Amino acid sequence: MTGTTGRSAAGGLDTLDTPCLILDEAKLLANLQGMRSHLDQLGVAFRPHLKTAKSIDVARRAMTSPRGPATVSTLKEAEYFAERGVHDLTYAVGIAPHKLDRVGAIRGRWGADLAVILDSVAQAEAVAAWSGANGDPLPVFIEIDADGHRSGVKPDDADLIRAIGGRLAPASLRGVLLHAGDSYGLSDPDSLAAAAEAERAAACRAADILRAAGLACPVVSVGSTPTARHARDLSGVTEVRAGVFMFGDLVQAGIGSCAVGDIAVSVLTTVIGHRPDRGWIVTDAGWMAMSRDRGTARQAVDQGYGLVCDLDGVPIPGLIVAEANQEHGVVALRAASGARLPDLPVGTKLRILPNHACATAAQYDRYHVLGKDGRFGEIWPRINGW
Amino acid sequence: MTGTTGRSAAGGLDTLDTPCLILDEAKLLANLQGMRSHLDQLGVAFRPHLKTAKSIDVARRAMTSPRGPATVSTLKEAEYFAERGVHDLTYAVGIAPHKLDRVGAIRGRWGADLAVILDSVAQAEAVAAWSGANGDPLPVFIEIDADGHRSGVKPDDADLIRAIGGRLAPASLRGVLLHAGDSYGLSDPDSLAAAAEAERAAACRAADILRAAGLACPVVSVGSTPTARHARDLSGVTEVRAGVFMFGDLVQAGIGSCAVGDIAVSVLTTVIGHRPDRGWIVTDAGWMAMSRDRGTARQAVDQGYGLVCDLDGVPIPGLIVAEANQEHGVVALRAASGARLPDLPVGTKLRILPNHACATAAQYDRYHVLGKDGRFGEIWPRINGW
Repeated sequence: MTGTTGRSAAGGLDTLDTPCLILDEAKLLANLQGMRSHLDQLGVAFRPHLKTAKSIDVARRAMTSPRGPATVSTLKEAEYFAERGVHDLTYAVGIAPHKLDRVGAIRGRWGADLAVILDSVAQAEAVAAWSGANGDPLPVFIEIDADGHRSGVKPDDADLIRAIGGRLAPASLRGVLLHAGDSYGLSDPDSLAAAAEAERAAACRAADILRAAGLACPVVSVGSTPTARHARDLSGVTEVRAGVFMFGDLVQAGIGSCAVGDIAVSVLTTVIGHRPDRGWIVTDAGWMAMSRDRGTARQAVDQGYGLVCDLDGVPIPGLIVAEANQEHGVVALRAASGARLPDLPVGTKLRILPNHACATAAQYDRYHVLGKDGRFGEIWPRINGW
Repeated sequence: MTGTTGRSAAGGLDTLDTPCLILDEAKLLANLQGMRSHLDQLGVAFRPHLKTAKSIDVARRAMTSPRGPATVSTLKEAEYFAERGVHDLTYAVGIAPHKLDRVGAIRGRWGADLAVILDSVAQAEAVAAWSGANGDPLPVFIEIDADGHRSGVKPDDADLIRAIGGRLAPASLRGVLLHAGDSYGLSDPDSLAAAAEAERAAACRAADILRAAGLACPVVSVGSTPTARHARDLSGVTEVRAGVFMFGDLVQAGIGSCAVGDIAVSVLTTVIGHRPDRGWIVTDAGWMAMSRDRGTARQAVDQGYGLVCDLDGVPIPGLIVAEANQEHGVVALRAASGARLPDLPVGTKLRILPNHACATAAQYDRYHVLGKDGRFGEIWPRINGW
């Protein structure tokens, strides 16, 4: 654990208290470059979703410009990023009417172009009324349901799409927005490409309905890491939102949206005990450190609460976090792994790759950064909450 | 939702932004009183576990005195509470040697009597060496395995128990400590009473081994909300640690350690959409607001991501959070509930009872308190992280 070669020695990872969250900047930058090249080839703009990172330092590396564009999942994110100069923002969760004053305050205080989304006439009327009363024509996306996953108007419900579009004035219709969440259940490239195509087709259909009704629909926004990664054609789409791909995680690896070696975040932990009778190595990274996310349980390879790596981030054959209590991780060999339980004495430091980067990162208030130059020590703060 | 009677109107809960975490002080105090009376009858001291609440305001209501005793699950909790005058503390997660300097700093800076736990000779030797080098004889518990759940020496491994006890000097053996975690899988009172008795018997057996070897073992510490609740006799035990009972949650209700009506924490959320074709009501409390904990999935009644209540905290028949995305909750009727989906327009505020209070509370940095006097408005901060 105090090797004299490799990044761990150079970086001093082993000097950190545990558990803590490590971010590998070189992997982050490679993931960003990969997505940018892919979207450039498809001819669409990129509006990165900042809900995974919730960090201005990550955002500045992800965005086209310091001003954005970007996507957020909470108004607290909108405030945090707007205060730091990110002024082209979409709040991509259906607007609750009582939140409009807070949206207006963000627009007013920082001059941010913050757009909202909605999928009902009731919301459209609330936004129209607010825009009129405040003299601030809010930019609005109509959320369209790509695949029955959660919110949105069905793309074949032309009456409702037109009704919402027609009730927005004096708010301003900016376009349509979709999220193909069901793509998280897929794992072969052709099915994922088909999901991306279905998302694109639903988006274009809804945009056509609005345009045929004489309403402008300048922006056609789609997003989900799996469909963004696997889209082969995005004709008619103007922008893509995606976020978790920046870090990657075991769920995305199971889907085929990244390789295990691309995962940029890991939890540093320390061995605190052993149960040789059970083949257990106990660590101080329990579910509080990893989150309760068990997203890989539904996939072909169940990774427990995470994949165990050495201090250099290299997976140790067969080893996963098989169980977790609040502050205890139980590391064990995967069933039928054929591997031998390694000798990891009390005090050994390990790195755990998470199932779900959004959930794991949310358990921390900072990233300990392994810099792209191989140097370690920078800390990037992140926010949580609402 | 703006009724003119009841606590919601008096309290102004409906004026809060969402999602946020509500704590009902009257229920908290009743839960504490119930545990205190029970332990008084059994003749054992109470060392409340503060890992659920992580709040000095809750701690002061739970502890016998402002000084403690209390239990913590992280050194950050120990620092936070020690700084606020709680000086009788046990850090009840196996000690990693590199954390001893931080333990020593807490003891030195605040004069706190902070004890550590361990279950190996390697840890005992590290603690002994640290105590010697720093002239600070650390108080130490030997962790005993009550039921094969995670850490601890087996109570019949007399050689190991004696070997650890014998290597501690100049650190100071304070006693034995157990956590009957397998009790979380039970649900009938007799099995739970049997688990409590097994925990007690294992504790006494280990203490007897130490005493027979001529080692003092003044404290015999057991703990877990289910076994604490269901213990019928605790002869030989000197103290009980338990924490989640203060708030209660749906997992504890499923075990039979509390009633649904006893649950003191809930997440306030707002309806943001509907999918009538699917019977869904969409809210702004997704898994980020509830945590990813699905602890009731293993119980007789699966509560999804939580039980849906009105603004007064009364469950709405048949309604649960059936699915969750990061910032979206999907509220729906439980399968075969026989109930009718209620009309809950966009903007309606609801309260969700959580599966697991420790995990849900950890998603927040504060409690919005519904005071025991029925008044609302106090905010109690809480900490997270390590």
